Amino acid sequence: MTELERVERIRRTAGRARGMTLGIGDDCAIYQPKAGEELLFTTDMLIEGVHFLRDTHSAADIGHKALARGLSDIAAMGGTPRFCLLSLAVPPETTERWLDGFYKGLLDLTKRTRAPLAGGDLAHADKITCDIIVCGSTPSGTALRRSGAKPGDQIYVTGMLGGSAMGLATGKGAGWKRHLRPEPRLKIGSVLREKYRATSCMDLSDGLSIDLHRLCLASEVSADLDGDLPAFPGASMEQFLHGGEDYELLFTVMKGVVLPGQIAGVPVTRIGTVRKGKPGAVTLDEFLILPMGYDHFRKP
Amino acid sequence: MTELERVERIRRTAGRARGMTLGIGDDCAIYQPKAGEELLFTTDMLIEGVHFLRDTHSAADIGHKALARGLSDIAAMGGTPRFCLLSLAVPPETTERWLDGFYKGLLDLTKRTRAPLAGGDLAHADKITCDIIVCGSTPSGTALRRSGAKPGDQIYVTGMLGGSAMGLATGKGAGWKRHLRPEPRLKIGSVLREKYRATSCMDLSDGLSIDLHRLCLASEVSADLDGDLPAFPGASMEQFLHGGEDYELLFTVMKGVVLPGQIAGVPVTRIGTVRKGKPGAVTLDEFLILPMGYDHFRKP
Repeated sequence: MTELERVERIRRTAGRARGMTLGIGDDCAIYQPKAGEELLFTTDMLIEGVHFLRDTHSAADIGHKALARGLSDIAAMGGTPRFCLLSLAVPPETTERWLDGFYKGLLDLTKRTRAPLAGGDLAHADKITCDIIVCGSTPSGTALRRSGAKPGDQIYVTGMLGGSAMGLATGKGAGWKRHLRPEPRLKIGSVLREKYRATSCMDLSDGLSIDLHRLCLASEVSADLDGDLPAFPGASMEQFLHGGEDYELLFTVMKGVVLPGQIAGVPVTRIGTVRKGKPGAVTLDEFLILPMGYDHFRKP
Repeated sequence: MTELERVERIRRTAGRARGMTLGIGDDCAIYQPKAGEELLFTTDMLIEGVHFLRDTHSAADIGHKALARGLSDIAAMGGTPRFCLLSLAVPPETTERWLDGFYKGLLDLTKRTRAPLAGGDLAHADKITCDIIVCGSTPSGTALRRSGAKPGDQIYVTGMLGGSAMGLATGKGAGWKRHLRPEPRLKIGSVLREKYRATSCMDLSDGLSIDLHRLCLASEVSADLDGDLPAFPGASMEQFLHGGEDYELLFTVMKGVVLPGQIAGVPVTRIGTVRKGKPGAVTLDEFLILPMGYDHFRKP
């Protein structure tokens, strides 16, 4: 199959987004924004040998995960997905079957989340390299940011943490499934934005310790972990605090806001309080927690 | 330097686009569209060992070229750049100096073309891998497409073709410089859209023969090359017809439209005529030209 034929096959199955004037096949995709919406953009790379191995991750898992990571960033802003673009480089010996599986995993998730694939790029490389770009939207001026947490706000997380890291360590069970198929918390993000007016939000991609540190830095506050610690069943304290790729939401709400125990079927748990203090400092039972999650550019 | 510190350094030098409510540093960038604009999106990968070699391409050349390729797609639609996003993966041993050089090459071009870097992703990989995403805009409904060429239209190209392929073969001279530092034809694209109402347009990234074939397929027409053939000085017929990476514009205008010899200081040359015929067929002096340009997915 040539590039032209592959692009044509993708085009036929991709669907078309509302507002998408022109999809796959030209130099650019064209999107007509709706009055009153602001647009959210995120890009996320998923690279063989760094983020996944071909032996343990099926083609469909990789397609799913590439997009799920991008959608998780849209969820973190309280956004609604609009469309996505995909740059994909694969080794020349990649089979048609692998490519079909990859696109199936990706396109199934685009359909379920209404984020049609609108364009991208195809190339060859030594290692499978995906870069997903997702565009989402919110009513203008309402997107959730990392920088809005205020002293006194309550800190929450969705779901249970450490499952993906535990799954990566054991290669089996519910943790491994979570690692392979993270679920972007789109519905919860929207509800937090519209109904509970979250003061800040981000997704947990690199681990609670470093991500909470980043949220606190952006908001110029510190944080005390003084609530429940909803660890994934079987996850260690290390995996709970520092494990990456849970793709749950970390967010803050004002002091008086009462949250239900679950939103959209997923538990939400209060884990701490925002404090006035050294920006970025995170404590647990008065011990300082060092940001130990994943940082691609930290020297070992 | 950690990822956080690197991101902060990029953020300080990136500048801010008009309409960019939130730039680098959160889960998503936020763009507030202007009433009456439609948005154009393109993604382009540039990969070490496939598109460039670290020995022959300076860090700044690679940064420039990564963005220039994306901007060229915006030019092909007659668009004005709004902002860009960059996903960059580099080997762990990459020096700070290389990264600084890369960002200088890229950011110099973002400044000159008013397409500030608004976000992206950073990761590690075995080979340097860049994916650039560019957003541009045109007044709604006016973007140039590949699909609008009609029988009788005149076919034109900007500049001279084959220079980049010749430069790649010789590794020196004006062709090599063109190969390293392609110049996106943004001004010409805008003029073709606004003033000369081009009926179709695309950029020449893979070679005239395959790109004209693609334009004709999209427009369901054929093409006769019967005009001048503006070859780059020293380029062979092979390089002129099939050489990639010239990043000139290929476009059509209606029969009666008279174009000047130059637009924005760049020659524009009539090379042929659009015909009713087998969609995608391209002839030169009545000989069929096979689409021989670069296709990543064609089997050798």
